[in-house]
Amino acid sequence: MRVGLVGLGLIGGSIGLRLVRNGAHVEGCDPDPATRAAAAAAGVVVHEDLGDWVAGLDLVVLAGPMATFEETLAALAPYDGPTVIDAGSVKGPVHALAAGAGLVGRFVGCHPMAGTEHTGFGAAAERLLVGVTWAVTVTPETDPERALGVVDFLLREFEARVIVLDPAEHDRAVATISHLPHIVASALLSAVSDDVAAALAAGSFRDGTRVGGRTTARTVAMLTENRVAVEQALARVTEELLELQRVLGDDEQVFAWAERSRAVRHRFFAGESTRRTAPRDLPALLGLGSDGWLVVGSAGEELVVAKGELNRAFAT
Amino acid sequence: MRVGLVGLGLIGGSIGLRLVRNGAHVEGCDPDPATRAAAAAAGVVVHEDLGDWVAGLDLVVLAGPMATFEETLAALAPYDGPTVIDAGSVKGPVHALAAGAGLVGRFVGCHPMAGTEHTGFGAAAERLLVGVTWAVTVTPETDPERALGVVDFLLREFEARVIVLDPAEHDRAVATISHLPHIVASALLSAVSDDVAAALAAGSFRDGTRVGGRTTARTVAMLTENRVAVEQALARVTEELLELQRVLGDDEQVFAWAERSRAVRHRFFAGESTRRTAPRDLPALLGLGSDGWLVVGSAGEELVVAKGELNRAFAT
Repeated sequence: MRVGLVGLGLIGGSIGLRLVRNGAHVEGCDPDPATRAAAAAAGVVVHEDLGDWVAGLDLVVLAGPMATFEETLAALAPYDGPTVIDAGSVKGPVHALAAGAGLVGRFVGCHPMAGTEHTGFGAAAERLLVGVTWAVTVTPETDPERALGVVDFLLREFEARVIVLDPAEHDRAVATISHLPHIVASALLSAVSDDVAAALAAGSFRDGTRVGGRTTARTVAMLTENRVAVEQALARVTEELLELQRVLGDDEQVFAWAERSRAVRHRFFAGESTRRTAPRDLPALLGLGSDGWLVVGSAGEELVVAKGELNRAFAT
Repeated sequence: MRVGLVGLGLIGGSIGLRLVRNGAHVEGCDPDPATRAAAAAAGVVVHEDLGDWVAGLDLVVLAGPMATFEETLAALAPYDGPTVIDAGSVKGPVHALAAGAGLVGRFVGCHPMAGTEHTGFGAAAERLLVGVTWAVTVTPETDPERALGVVDFLLREFEARVIVLDPAEHDRAVATISHLPHIVASALLSAVSDDVAAALAAGSFRDGTRVGGRTTARTVAMLTENRVAVEQALARVTEELLELQRVLGDDEQVFAWAERSRAVRHRFFAGESTRRTAPRDLPALLGLGSDGWLVVGSAGEELVVAKGELNRAFAT
């Protein structure tokens, strides 16, 4: 297995550390000399830029900021061997960029559902992306063999739990369970107005604002790159709060408001999981994904799919 | 030191375990037989109800639900020896109840800024309330000697960091840094609409919704007991989200929106702490408290106050 990493920060670095540990041949590039030195020390063959070194690879991972993708995809276009994946948190725009660069068939979107508020190779860890849910996104133009190859790659190298999705469906869901908590963390912080509140803050405020630690640039990127879905999710949570404002004072309605969220939470912790086999067929996996089924392993010619199991990055 | 606990759940139990460990004489009552058995095994002299056993105590702690306070305060009125404190999360209404029961001079409001989403004596722990910030609330009618005695008690028995506040000021701050995160956790949960989102949820959603695990009855109590301050805090966070909706698409304004929350967060983690001494004087401590200063120890006849240090329950 020969893999190239374009970007060696938190995500690129964690992918690299894992693949080196698994015995793969890993090359990568990053504009930062200190990052390259650290990655080289960890066993990655490093380069300053993209170049002919990608020609013989099986897989190239776009692991830099999304703002760099257009240029990177254009630079990759002449090398038609490797399957190209990314690891970003928004999928629709990346598929559009891949199509624009002429890589539509061999591009497969990937999004590991784990991370930390830290950044850079120094925060990378071999286990960060292992055992967690990875979203894999495909369009009708995606080469099914390459997409199934990426699913196998993630199962084998990352013990992943893979959910196959349409890019727009992914972006809608991620707006709700990732971008929205980031926005709300910022809003909670901005609502604190004095030193008394700061002196009293305890666990509920700490947890509710933990992801408020990211850089402002990352927040803006997140809100820009997934704008439509974020707008819808933001409207939904705002409507929940406006509804509570309307019913405050009516205990019965406040009870019903709070009870609704309990029912959702119960789904996360119900612990009722189901496993079965599914064909190694991309349209079938897309249908299963949109119903919440994850590919968790293979059984001979078939795949094993599971529903109702928590993402390790949620449960721990 | 002779202390009585009215209620032996998470908070009453944790106070009891700590005081027993410190060698105090601790009595307590709880309506639940299993709770009484567990507390007795831990060294608490247990009773089914309030009664003459409170007559000789130095301090009585209201550690049950706020709905029980009116009855408990009335039952305590005939025993005019002990100072009475509570440990609830809302202070204005409790001072009003104490005044109504004729205990206004010897009632001191207390609120340990720590906890867990669990409940009951089984979740109590000797260290749960140790080393954390405790709010102490007083009114112009509070006996200053009793209030200063409670500050000393918390410093000595709980290594507390005590902030002395007016009840309304406490309730406003707590609405922001405690009740609001609880509300927002519920709203985030209710915004999740499908199994795809549930399968993708990771750390940001877990942390943003952790306190969504409490019972609906507790949510309703919180929203009812601190209604005015919650309404204001809720309006503030909702306005933050509406503002973001208005500026989405204008990167410069989105940047300014996100940067504002960063500035608040920076105050929490700036790590610039100051310590000095302050007189053992209630009006002086109230003034310091409303500026965010915490009493952290004593130095001869004076007290040591600190500002800019994180609550242990926030920092860890």
